[in-house]
Amino acid sequence: MVGKAIASKLVELAHEVRMGSRAAGNESAVAWAAEAGEGASTGTFADAAGFGEVVFNCTAGVASLDALNAAGDINLAGKLLIDVANPLDFSQGMPPSLSVCNTDSLGERIQRAFPATHVVKALNTVNCDVMVEPARVPGEHVVFVCGNDPEAKDEATRLLGEFGWPAERVLDLGDVTAARSTEMYLPLWLNLMGQLGTLHFNIELAREVGSVDRQEA
Amino acid sequence: MVGKAIASKLVELAHEVRMGSRAAGNESAVAWAAEAGEGASTGTFADAAGFGEVVFNCTAGVASLDALNAAGDINLAGKLLIDVANPLDFSQGMPPSLSVCNTDSLGERIQRAFPATHVVKALNTVNCDVMVEPARVPGEHVVFVCGNDPEAKDEATRLLGEFGWPAERVLDLGDVTAARSTEMYLPLWLNLMGQLGTLHFNIELAREVGSVDRQEA
Repeated sequence: MVGKAIASKLVELAHEVRMGSRAAGNESAVAWAAEAGEGASTGTFADAAGFGEVVFNCTAGVASLDALNAAGDINLAGKLLIDVANPLDFSQGMPPSLSVCNTDSLGERIQRAFPATHVVKALNTVNCDVMVEPARVPGEHVVFVCGNDPEAKDEATRLLGEFGWPAERVLDLGDVTAARSTEMYLPLWLNLMGQLGTLHFNIELAREVGSVDRQEA
Repeated sequence: MVGKAIASKLVELAHEVRMGSRAAGNESAVAWAAEAGEGASTGTFADAAGFGEVVFNCTAGVASLDALNAAGDINLAGKLLIDVANPLDFSQGMPPSLSVCNTDSLGERIQRAFPATHVVKALNTVNCDVMVEPARVPGEHVVFVCGNDPEAKDEATRLLGEFGWPAERVLDLGDVTAARSTEMYLPLWLNLMGQLGTLHFNIELAREVGSVDRQEA
């Protein structure tokens, strides 16, 4: 669902997109490509990773490292990898727990497994409809990027801009260890979804007037 | 710091407040009571818990169970206990990790240890200055309550109203297991503090227009 939302948006923005799956010819992926039209293609995880200048990890968090290993470190080396996954573990029922948290995170695990890849954690704090159409939710709500490579974060922020996120609403939380923070927000996101009764919400930041913004200082 | 902020606010609101410490005659507590004036007193954790109709747990999260055990289950039984603590573990340096998270929480541990007490987790998502003076941060920012007893949550919400939080900005996240969510938000809070350069901030909620509010539905 997340992969389709992002892939469709990228095609709409005139990017060429190859959606990767465990095996070539995945029915759901082929149906997506047929519907998305020109610029859309499908293949294995390795095909997709080799094809893309930028790679989005939209797999289920508990399966992400397997999928990225299948994609192959050579196909991922030197590239920006935008990791939108959350390590939600549904094996014990609802609500899900996180399969990694607190002193480590999925984003960090991916960065450690692929040291030649520029991992940027982003968009994992909003539903996929909101990821690619932030205007669906009114107001000055925000998303986060974090990662070890400043240029990769700039490139990710530029892509988020194409999705409709103004740069001033994309907050840089620092290096990839901040993935802990945005992944650990998921339990609150799930509670808020239940309380608000919608998937289509997000958080804004309110702060004391007169406080110094370090980015401006 | 959190305890003083809340205790001072309660005295200002004409409540009688007894601040508890490990030992009677704690210098910092005595100094607070002298400055706070009428209605302010000090004692041991047990003195404070026995005195209060409502008890606030403002101790460091990693010490909370010890402090509440010292307070005594008889002194806490049948009472509303508002738990504002976060289980931040600084033993490995900065940033802190959580001493409990994911499939359990400090709020739940306290509720399990004191089954006759009505634990409501609240206010742990904002700095203590904002806890007692929400208007310090402009906008419709929110705080959360959770707990197993609806009446206890209503009473906590009423007290938050005295602190300046309108009821519509106090979101009920459900039973005490939701303490996991608000405690696991702390790493993001810490990142945001660094990014915004102030302690005095909070989150607002933005949602799609036309989405159904379960509380109104």
